[in-house]
Amino acid sequence: MKSLHSLALKVDRGSLWILDQTRLPDEEIWLSGDEPAEMVGHIQRLSVRGAPLIGVAAALCFARFAEQGAARPALEAAYGELRSARPTAVNLMWAMDRMKAALDGGGSATELVETAEAIFEEDAALCEAMAERGAALLSPGEAVLTHCNAGALATAGIGTAVGVIRRAFELGRVSHVFVDETRPLLQGARLTAWEMVRVGIPHTLITDSMAAILMRQGRVQRVLVGADRVAANGDFANKVGTYGLAVLANHHGVPFHPVAPWSTVDLACPDGRAIPIEERQAGEVRGYGALRWAPQASPVFNPSFDVTPVELVTSLVLDRAVLNQAQLRDGELSRI
Amino acid sequence: MKSLHSLALKVDRGSLWILDQTRLPDEEIWLSGDEPAEMVGHIQRLSVRGAPLIGVAAALCFARFAEQGAARPALEAAYGELRSARPTAVNLMWAMDRMKAALDGGGSATELVETAEAIFEEDAALCEAMAERGAALLSPGEAVLTHCNAGALATAGIGTAVGVIRRAFELGRVSHVFVDETRPLLQGARLTAWEMVRVGIPHTLITDSMAAILMRQGRVQRVLVGADRVAANGDFANKVGTYGLAVLANHHGVPFHPVAPWSTVDLACPDGRAIPIEERQAGEVRGYGALRWAPQASPVFNPSFDVTPVELVTSLVLDRAVLNQAQLRDGELSRI
Repeated sequence: MKSLHSLALKVDRGSLWILDQTRLPDEEIWLSGDEPAEMVGHIQRLSVRGAPLIGVAAALCFARFAEQGAARPALEAAYGELRSARPTAVNLMWAMDRMKAALDGGGSATELVETAEAIFEEDAALCEAMAERGAALLSPGEAVLTHCNAGALATAGIGTAVGVIRRAFELGRVSHVFVDETRPLLQGARLTAWEMVRVGIPHTLITDSMAAILMRQGRVQRVLVGADRVAANGDFANKVGTYGLAVLANHHGVPFHPVAPWSTVDLACPDGRAIPIEERQAGEVRGYGALRWAPQASPVFNPSFDVTPVELVTSLVLDRAVLNQAQLRDGELSRI
Repeated sequence: MKSLHSLALKVDRGSLWILDQTRLPDEEIWLSGDEPAEMVGHIQRLSVRGAPLIGVAAALCFARFAEQGAARPALEAAYGELRSARPTAVNLMWAMDRMKAALDGGGSATELVETAEAIFEEDAALCEAMAERGAALLSPGEAVLTHCNAGALATAGIGTAVGVIRRAFELGRVSHVFVDETRPLLQGARLTAWEMVRVGIPHTLITDSMAAILMRQGRVQRVLVGADRVAANGDFANKVGTYGLAVLANHHGVPFHPVAPWSTVDLACPDGRAIPIEERQAGEVRGYGALRWAPQASPVFNPSFDVTPVELVTSLVLDRAVLNQAQLRDGELSRI
């Protein structure tokens, strides 16, 4: 396999490595991703995360497994395990189905490797295309708000929502970024804030509960978020908290945009009700990491994602098009 | 001074003690509150918190200081320091002004002690009155959502919003309580959840970002919150995140009620714009306690409170009346 490098994933001297995102921002530790069983663990523990990146990582892992000489039955099993490592993001299923199609087409290990490399390289190119189309929506000097991490850590390129923000910042269209911390796993505070420091974009970290008052004070001109699955009607799933932000943006007249590559669109999913939502363990809400602050006896609700209906979407930024709400409601997603 | 006991404040063998709420739910540690300088520290570190309770605690501390023989100039200084320990909650100013009026009226130490004891006892009685009036608003079997801690830990009695919830639970009108964790200081996760466990009310802990999806799923029938200051027009300040909940409740047609004693109403404050909002240190948002998870280089916005406009209030529950939005907008607060 050739050498590949992104912020959180690399193929180096033929081996696949992923940056352990649970240890950021204070420690940069790379984990081996050559074995499907270990990659499934990395995905489930969120060491590798971000809808596009988990698809890329799983495809590369599968190709590395083939390259190491795995036989057909082992590859079939690895396909199933990797594909179902997380239930909500559709990019993972899309990437694994593309690998499976290559395998079923009689693909050699070399062909599987080339397919996975192409998935990596295409993802980086898709980020550029989204950044270009998304940045064109902004006016000079906007302050924007983002949730979770839809950045370079979530893709093989510069990110989805954060890619748009970076390109718009270069063009003078973003002056400031408000970063939601994104409880319970704090991807905003740990990952997006770290990316903002790294690329030098002026930003302010807030708790999720502070977005509303910023909007009321007129300090947010636009909300840009990623997506884990977009249904055919334009409803979409993203990190829990996104739906609330969409309601708040709507109430305050602030434009609201999901940003995603085409592989996030699931035309087989008619609307948001058909998107499965992963529920995670209670300990994530009772505290953080090894620290617990809530009573052990308190039950917890911990959906990893929520669904935002198309009625709250100003426009959806894809690599191949920007569709506004009217176009989405018109079924335009099925025709592009 | 006579013996007084509430969940988080007591006078025991003549000395004043406060339960260190920063250590809950895992440790129950009582701190001495006899000296004004130490009480100011307890208030600022949020060891004692909750708008009604800090007023009660400051008044009792002031009376204990007089009882220990403090001279008039020392009492004048203590009055100023205690009154300004936190800027947003008006109950503190109200309680201290009542103590000052007793002092200025030539009050002896004994009279100051009696005034402070009355403030404690009245606060407990006001909780009962709010619980009675508030519980009458609910229908059988409601699931309600609350933010921060407006419970027995925040008052000398059973609480404001949580007092209503407890009374309504006894009457079969509350079947379940959703508890917002309330970042950054997690008063919901640490304190309200602990109170729910303690009194045996079925509850579920959520992150602040999950309230929206619960409302969308029709799982919340009512939102009940406390208040730190109510302006003459019905706008009110409460823990940051309250405003966003009000917008969400409004969007989903869920009734929304602040619950507060009369001492929280500040008729000198014409509307929410006149309420000063305390900003706290950045470290509270970059992590929790000694744990930091965000980059040290990331700037932070950390207002302790936000203001909810009367337009989003279904009704305000006071000890002496329940005023609906129309009555509030009509200026009824100035006439009762």
